[in-house]
Amino acid sequence: MAIVAVDAMGGDDAPAAIVAGAAEASLSSEVLIRLVGDEAEIARLLAARPHEKSHIQIVPSVGRIPMDASPRTALAELPGASLPVAARYVALGSAAGGADALVSAGNTGAVILACAQAFQRIEGVSRTALAAVVPTERRHGAKSDPFTLLLDVGATVRVRAEDLVGFALMGAAYSGVISKNARPRVALLSNGTEPNKGTDEIIAAHELLLKIPDIDFIGNVEGVDIPRGSADVIVCDGFTGNVVLKMFEGVSETVMRLARYAYRNKLAWKLALALLSSGIKQLKSVTDWQQYGGAPILGFDRICIKAHGRSGPRAIKNAIKVAARCVEQDLSGRIGSHLGQRSSLPAPPPPA
Amino acid sequence: MAIVAVDAMGGDDAPAAIVAGAAEASLSSEVLIRLVGDEAEIARLLAARPHEKSHIQIVPSVGRIPMDASPRTALAELPGASLPVAARYVALGSAAGGADALVSAGNTGAVILACAQAFQRIEGVSRTALAAVVPTERRHGAKSDPFTLLLDVGATVRVRAEDLVGFALMGAAYSGVISKNARPRVALLSNGTEPNKGTDEIIAAHELLLKIPDIDFIGNVEGVDIPRGSADVIVCDGFTGNVVLKMFEGVSETVMRLARYAYRNKLAWKLALALLSSGIKQLKSVTDWQQYGGAPILGFDRICIKAHGRSGPRAIKNAIKVAARCVEQDLSGRIGSHLGQRSSLPAPPPPA
Repeated sequence: MAIVAVDAMGGDDAPAAIVAGAAEASLSSEVLIRLVGDEAEIARLLAARPHEKSHIQIVPSVGRIPMDASPRTALAELPGASLPVAARYVALGSAAGGADALVSAGNTGAVILACAQAFQRIEGVSRTALAAVVPTERRHGAKSDPFTLLLDVGATVRVRAEDLVGFALMGAAYSGVISKNARPRVALLSNGTEPNKGTDEIIAAHELLLKIPDIDFIGNVEGVDIPRGSADVIVCDGFTGNVVLKMFEGVSETVMRLARYAYRNKLAWKLALALLSSGIKQLKSVTDWQQYGGAPILGFDRICIKAHGRSGPRAIKNAIKVAARCVEQDLSGRIGSHLGQRSSLPAPPPPA
Repeated sequence: MAIVAVDAMGGDDAPAAIVAGAAEASLSSEVLIRLVGDEAEIARLLAARPHEKSHIQIVPSVGRIPMDASPRTALAELPGASLPVAARYVALGSAAGGADALVSAGNTGAVILACAQAFQRIEGVSRTALAAVVPTERRHGAKSDPFTLLLDVGATVRVRAEDLVGFALMGAAYSGVISKNARPRVALLSNGTEPNKGTDEIIAAHELLLKIPDIDFIGNVEGVDIPRGSADVIVCDGFTGNVVLKMFEGVSETVMRLARYAYRNKLAWKLALALLSSGIKQLKSVTDWQQYGGAPILGFDRICIKAHGRSGPRAIKNAIKVAARCVEQDLSGRIGSHLGQRSSLPAPPPPA
């Protein structure tokens, strides 16, 4: 059974939402959850919720990393907080009494840094990446998932060509595990579909990717292809990915706000929205990030799923499930063997 | 009266849509339009449409730049095509019998290159920028325009800090002319609001912009702020801007496609959409790029408005109006004086 350490104190609604999500997961999943955080508070919250006792344990820690703190400073000042304790616990590994995977809805920069401090990079990985799922029109993989995997969305702001190649291989491995997609179509995000379009790094990565066997590299895609879902995995630098992902959130928020405003203000619109409700539910289920559970940090020897800061219980439950599936399917091993495919390419310089 | 040269042969539906738009503009605007292209075909199209004869003239040229051609090759091989002829005509200036501004719905890269070959950069401009309007929730300027100006969206893929500063000043000048926004709020697009977030170029540009008087620099904004409309002018490199703009187009296309699908398939939805029609019209008018007429290329001594390749007559008419307004309000002069504000800053190295 996979053992997942959950940072109970990280997230906008922590620890209540985190503990509630873990309690739900303990009832429905074959997973052992170790909740890391304030022992008394977690015990109190847990007592108020149905849960499977044999699937949940509490690991005490002291303090929490604030959501808006500078990651480096906060981790240096609070080594005993829930996040770094959980990360070190996962680094130990389940065989040594630790855990196999980490789930946190905390400060994104701090989660990435805590992983970097506690975990090892998989051999051949030059830079780690945070991968997000973006809702799309087209369905993907054997599970018909209505999303595309976009990476990096913020772990590595400046990339070299080799880093983009690594992101492509790691994204393909993750898509295989999570969407049961045996041969995901992988693309580079650029400002034109031609191979000579983009930054120097993108142009060089394009050339390198064409030489790698066993990856279905479909070339460059443009911004318009993200919502269309023209590729299963879309690769970009962390700066561009962050802007794109947050813009998606903004568009969806704005549409919801306009719809609510309409709902309050006009009788005909109220009636219309009632008639449309099944369609709106359908649309909501497509754009609802909570059901996808979170964004994996790819490239470390240990699994980490970064849940959204605003995660409610359902998002946490799903993040725990995703983490368990990544462990069971040996995501890190798959990434390692994917990266082995580029052994014929010139070795990347050691990361700075 | 402003004289606008229109590339009659550039655009997906050229020359029919272009000539139709020019004919409409001749009836409603105080502007002299010079249609550059195939003389016989333009004359034939014009004869079939109501237009104001005293406001339209035909300038003959031979050939057209294909929409998907390599800009450099096509311009070298077709120096007599409508686009380069129109650009040289504008370079002459209206005093010498040419024109004041260029409008083209042709191949974007070729339009930018034709301008670069025919026009001069305004003193102090290190790089030119293509600026696009993006629909937003918040209204902007004295005209309550429901859009934010985003630049660069594709003219300069790689930028230095000085280039971003120039884009900010040019965008502020354009916003003043087009949205009657005396003091536009200007922001840098980044992956975090803190001044130390972003690429090295963004961090350096942030510092420089804080030192410039007479510009309302509000700091960094994130992707989520684009649809919200938190700033009047949002500055980024041409790669990021291109991805963001095309993603916006993709989201809007996907939503429209899903709505049409719903419309065909369910009686209740048909009824609902009929009831919502006024709301949909409102939303459509906000997201309808055709009414904004196109994207200015900023930084040259001559005005150029790049209309969307898919422009219909209404978009062309509006692009001609926007071009005329830029001439009347002396956009190039305003950009020059805005750029004078940073004379206290270190001089940028000469452009490559």
